[in-house]
Amino acid sequence: MKKIYSPLTEKMIEALQCLPGVGSKSAQRMVFYILNKDREGGKFISDALSEGCSSIKNCSKCRMLTEEVTCSICLSTSRDDSLMCVVETPADVVAIEQSVSYRGKYFVLMGHLSPIDGIGPKELSIDLLSKILDEGYVKEIILATSVTIEGDATADYIASIAKDRSIVPTRIAYGIPMGGELEFVDSGTLSRAITGRREIAE
Amino acid sequence: MKKIYSPLTEKMIEALQCLPGVGSKSAQRMVFYILNKDREGGKFISDALSEGCSSIKNCSKCRMLTEEVTCSICLSTSRDDSLMCVVETPADVVAIEQSVSYRGKYFVLMGHLSPIDGIGPKELSIDLLSKILDEGYVKEIILATSVTIEGDATADYIASIAKDRSIVPTRIAYGIPMGGELEFVDSGTLSRAITGRREIAE
Repeated sequence: MKKIYSPLTEKMIEALQCLPGVGSKSAQRMVFYILNKDREGGKFISDALSEGCSSIKNCSKCRMLTEEVTCSICLSTSRDDSLMCVVETPADVVAIEQSVSYRGKYFVLMGHLSPIDGIGPKELSIDLLSKILDEGYVKEIILATSVTIEGDATADYIASIAKDRSIVPTRIAYGIPMGGELEFVDSGTLSRAITGRREIAE
Repeated sequence: MKKIYSPLTEKMIEALQCLPGVGSKSAQRMVFYILNKDREGGKFISDALSEGCSSIKNCSKCRMLTEEVTCSICLSTSRDDSLMCVVETPADVVAIEQSVSYRGKYFVLMGHLSPIDGIGPKELSIDLLSKILDEGYVKEIILATSVTIEGDATADYIASIAKDRSIVPTRIAYGIPMGGELEFVDSGTLSRAITGRREIAE
């Protein structure tokens, strides 16, 4: 492709294509928007990315994203140390926190087992998780990985580690979502909902 | 919304929402992607935006985006000074350059007349355009603004300025696109294509 833009404009367009889901046309549109209407915004993005990329690390205990050594959830003294919820991504932690029904700790795997992509226990920091479980505070480990073959395999793998240490592994409930109508629910979910049925308490 | 991410992570998510078409969910996804998989890319974006936002200006002659005083197209001596193509955006210049059928100069309006949004002749730098036309080099002005009510109005307005200076105003041809099948072309385009019919040369 012929270079028509000035070198710096080309550089901006190329750079924004590092973002997931942004191709050359969207990047071009973003660059024009920033240059014509929101240079302040452009500088704000620049500062935030440069600061973030050099300072944000994974929490030393749960692997959540944080610029401190240990994240605020791990440092909190009002949380239940005996309960640990294992999730795949930082976004999952946020989703659970927003539902406000959970007051235990977390462990963020940053992915799921996927031998085909070279992601094994080492990449998910399972050794760090085992070390925390060895400390003996955790009594129940809630496996909230995704309901996919990989997510289920990851949950099973961690469940076996937990059982070795006499910790109760549980899987979060999967079934019909709130307000869901049976006829529109996919058969996989429906099958899980029936297998996971519970007796109605008196 | 409860703040669960660390302050720097929140700042990155907020900053990326300055980009057009990026909401909180996409911004979150972009931040995780950058932090987990492409910190180099994040720094590249940061550098490119900071450099670009402080150095890229509009060309003093045609208003194209450039970090120099005058852009490379305006400086080129191999281009036809008697021909000027007026377009709405820098992307239009790139589209025309890529078709390789044009060797004249450009003028980028950075928009079109739109009184309702407060965009009048001043915002489109029509005074700069008039000054260039007054220099007397331009013999034909090609109006390549978009085929919308605003684009047509803008073209008519500039055409009248050109006529005052005995410069020939022309409008680029609108009609059936290459490979277009009549039955699928909208009626507005079809109507333009029939009005704009040309005699077949022998």
